[in-house]
Amino acid sequence: MNIFHVEGSLVCTRRVDGLKNQSLRVLRDAFTGNLAVATDPVGARPGNRVFAVSGSAARYAMDDWKIYTDLTICGIIDLSDDEAD
Amino acid sequence: MNIFHVEGSLVCTRRVDGLKNQSLRVLRDAFTGNLAVATDPVGARPGNRVFAVSGSAARYAMDDWKIYTDLTICGIIDLSDDEAD
Amino acid sequence: MNIFHVEGSLVCTRRVDGLKNQSLRVLRDAFTGNLAVATDPVGARPGNRVFAVSGSAARYAMDDWKIYTDLTICGIIDLSDDEAD
Amino acid sequence: MNIFHVEGSLVCTRRVDGLKNQSLRVLRDAFTGNLAVATDPVGARPGNRVFAVSGSAARYAMDDWKIYTDLTICGIIDLSDDEAD
Amino acid sequence: MNIFHVEGSLVCTRRVDGLKNQSLRVLRDAFTGNLAVATDPVGARPGNRVFAVSGSAARYAMDDWKIYTDLTICGIIDLSDDEAD
Repeated sequence: MNIFHVEGSLVCTRRVDGLKNQSLRVLRDAFTGNLAVATDPVGARPGNRVFAVSGSAARYAMDDWKIYTDLTICGIIDLSDDEAD
Repeated sequence: MNIFHVEGSLVCTRRVDGLKNQSLRVLRDAFTGNLAVATDPVGARPGNRVFAVSGSAARYAMDDWKIYTDLTICGIIDLSDDEAD
Repeated sequence: MNIFHVEGSLVCTRRVDGLKNQSLRVLRDAFTGNLAVATDPVGARPGNRVFAVSGSAARYAMDDWKIYTDLTICGIIDLSDDEAD
Repeated sequence: MNIFHVEGSLVCTRRVDGLKNQSLRVLRDAFTGNLAVATDPVGARPGNRVFAVSGSAARYAMDDWKIYTDLTICGIIDLSDDEAD
Repeated sequence: MNIFHVEGSLVCTRRVDGLKNQSLRVLRDAFTGNLAVATDPVGARPGNRVFAVSGSAARYAMDDWKIYTDLTICGIIDLSDDEAD
């Protein structure tokens, strides 16, 4: 799972039915700086540092596996051990 | 899901049956600049900014999961929150 | 799906049964320049520009999904719209 | 499977149910230097060099395949042949 | 499928049951130079040039698909057409 910063939400008028009414987050990769779009079952907010799962596990991590995402936010990061040292 | 700009359509006389009669779009990755080929169930046009799903979810995002793609356009992006600020 | 140039065929005396008697093509990625090995159900020739599907869809795109490839040539590219302009 | 160094553990108060009560490790990729988050069925410790499996195999490598990870530590590396030479 | 050089074998005292008693090879990517760990059903030796399949196909390419690998050596490369020219 990779680490991202939440930039904001994504607005699009036309999209496939397979994403249902899920709100989408724009994430910035913490290492490459590239933006990506993710589904968000944990309610992350702009400024949060999160980790997200990719591939087929992204679908299973949603409450409804028929949401056809390939990137799902799994958790909001508080503090990792290596930062506490 | 990654973010792309639509460059145009792809024409090829010989192709596998597994893509059926789907039209194909040429996309330019918004960050690496590389071109990729995607199936398009939303009707995107050249110049549109879109996001697309990869992996096995790309097949499910089509109306017919037996279309053997690995990249499917999921939506046309209007405006993201971070741009509105 | 990514875009490649066909470099030639791959010869190997010892290989897993899971690729059966499929001939294999050596492809050069059109953007990174790296070589990759792909199965070829469309009959591409050296010098052709092709696009290829990766992941689990690569198996389905073969006539026989029990061919254990992760990269399959899907079509030979003639001309894309953005080049015709 | 890729090679990583274990940096520490990840603490997060809010996360998806799909990771259950698994502890999570922060890993540093041995080649790119990027951080990633992995599940750990082998009990690795900070400073260990490990290899980890990605994709759908990451779920199967856990005792419980319903843990929705995409990166699982598979083993602690002692010494590879090329280092012993 | 990508191209690698075999560097040696991997020794690790503690590892997940999902890899069973398979011996593991350390491979060097022919283009990036990064090391990776793969299962080997063809009996490759240090110095061999090989190609390997990734993703879910890596499991199917083993005799036993319950070996939870994401990279499996598929064949030893003798000579490709483009080198013979």
